[in-house]
Amino acid sequence: MFKKIVIFGVGLIGGSFALAQKRSDMAAQIVGVGRTAAPLARAIELGIIDGASSADSAALAICLRDAELVLIAAPVAQTETILAAIAPHLRAGTIVTDAGSTKSDVVAAARRALGAKVAQFVPGHPIAGREQNGPEAALADLYVGKKVVLTPLPENAPADVVRVAAAWQQCGAIIQQLTPEQHDRVFASVSHLPHLLAYALVDDIARKPHADLLFQYAASGFRDFTRIAGSSPEMWRDIALANQAALLDELDAYMMQLAHLRSALANRDGGALEAVFANAQQARQRWGAAIEAAEKQQQEGGD
Amino acid sequence: MFKKIVIFGVGLIGGSFALAQKRSDMAAQIVGVGRTAAPLARAIELGIIDGASSADSAALAICLRDAELVLIAAPVAQTETILAAIAPHLRAGTIVTDAGSTKSDVVAAARRALGAKVAQFVPGHPIAGREQNGPEAALADLYVGKKVVLTPLPENAPADVVRVAAAWQQCGAIIQQLTPEQHDRVFASVSHLPHLLAYALVDDIARKPHADLLFQYAASGFRDFTRIAGSSPEMWRDIALANQAALLDELDAYMMQLAHLRSALANRDGGALEAVFANAQQARQRWGAAIEAAEKQQQEGGD
Repeated sequence: MFKKIVIFGVGLIGGSFALAQKRSDMAAQIVGVGRTAAPLARAIELGIIDGASSADSAALAICLRDAELVLIAAPVAQTETILAAIAPHLRAGTIVTDAGSTKSDVVAAARRALGAKVAQFVPGHPIAGREQNGPEAALADLYVGKKVVLTPLPENAPADVVRVAAAWQQCGAIIQQLTPEQHDRVFASVSHLPHLLAYALVDDIARKPHADLLFQYAASGFRDFTRIAGSSPEMWRDIALANQAALLDELDAYMMQLAHLRSALANRDGGALEAVFANAQQARQRWGAAIEAAEKQQQEGGD
Repeated sequence: MFKKIVIFGVGLIGGSFALAQKRSDMAAQIVGVGRTAAPLARAIELGIIDGASSADSAALAICLRDAELVLIAAPVAQTETILAAIAPHLRAGTIVTDAGSTKSDVVAAARRALGAKVAQFVPGHPIAGREQNGPEAALADLYVGKKVVLTPLPENAPADVVRVAAAWQQCGAIIQQLTPEQHDRVFASVSHLPHLLAYALVDDIARKPHADLLFQYAASGFRDFTRIAGSSPEMWRDIALANQAALLDELDAYMMQLAHLRSALANRDGGALEAVFANAQQARQRWGAAIEAAEKQQQEGGD
């Protein structure tokens, strides 16, 4: 489908995309680009990429000459630098996409870095992850059954959006479309805020003088609740800053909710507590059942 | 060890205790007591208990005549009523214990209900649970490798505390001791607050007009974070009210932590965000590694 794919960042996200592409009958040539040589060498060893290129301008000029697709899967704070570096070498037929966890800021960066060539940039966000990272963590089936959200720009050629969607579908992913603003509000709510809340709880406990005693009694509920607090602090700092406005809105709504619960608890208003708990339980059970049904259907479909 | 054990509440907690006792070479006779007949009949069918008794005074008088251990594993809000019902029939040689998730309120209830006989009451809290409930959910190995916290009273005979500990150890549990106040502060921090926070988030999202869109994009991080929001609203309402003072303290500390993070985010202070996230990540990873090592050791020990 694509003859040559250039991937910035050959860790979990970029590497898994590469491995999934390689399973195709007409696999593209895949070239990795990165700031440091070691992960690229490791990705070649692991059969994730066919070749590697340094990120300097002369090397990029050669590397991008016949590239049909460029995937930016580096930390989201590097997106603008990478787009600016490729801009002068970007030929008309090349499509660029990304895998960043926030989209409004990426689109703004792309407009600044690419100018008129922003029409060639189709923003995307694969909703998949693991706690591990680096080329070793890459999996050919990471995206199977997972959602990939594309947030196309008015400037994009519809055919380019279709081709990016097809590349992700080839990885087994399900394609969804949102505007960049919708995307950022949705993920502030169901992903960015929960990460912030989990970090906040673990830090709060860890700073107490009797933290060791507390952790000693933490059990399976605590383990699940705080699992996302094991994620990369740098990555989530960048995501929080990149999605500042939407995350502040969600955080404010949540703090009002806590103030409401605090007042119910202080007044021993069991009815008010139970109303919140019961509504949450019903919603969580409904959602959990829907997710399980979808997973089951997918497994049966895959047999 | 005990010739006859009487259990109030033959659901997950009481039923699992009964099944574990039955694996012993010298298994006690186990009698279930409950407010309704159906779960007791089911527990007999499932081989969890040997017999059942109604909770009326005449029946309790007979049932408790030769009981050596009474375990109260009913919802914690019923503890005082149950203790008051058994008080007139409690013989000197009988030990009473419980499985409630809060302890200061249970101890206060026991003092009111039992008077001088409170010396026979050894409060306890097994740290084990599943999302299912009822006799069908009971498992003989539910407590294997799990902690059981005893919070003995100054009035307790040390030999009675040892006998209650031994009964739980026979279920495979690891015994810890705390004062009731320590217990309640610890669990407010690592269990009750996380439950309240997870309920608050799911309720917050479920009440938004675009809740369906939001849930559609919730992924595995959200699933883990909110799993405890699937728990029983009545049970957690009762726990929150029973542990009001300690939970309010923890909630206030957490709300201050969120206010700190909100201000860092509003000021785009990436360093302050990262400091909290990184401290949390390190603490979470250290704790996770310790838990995994303990589980591994336990599995090897069990082979």
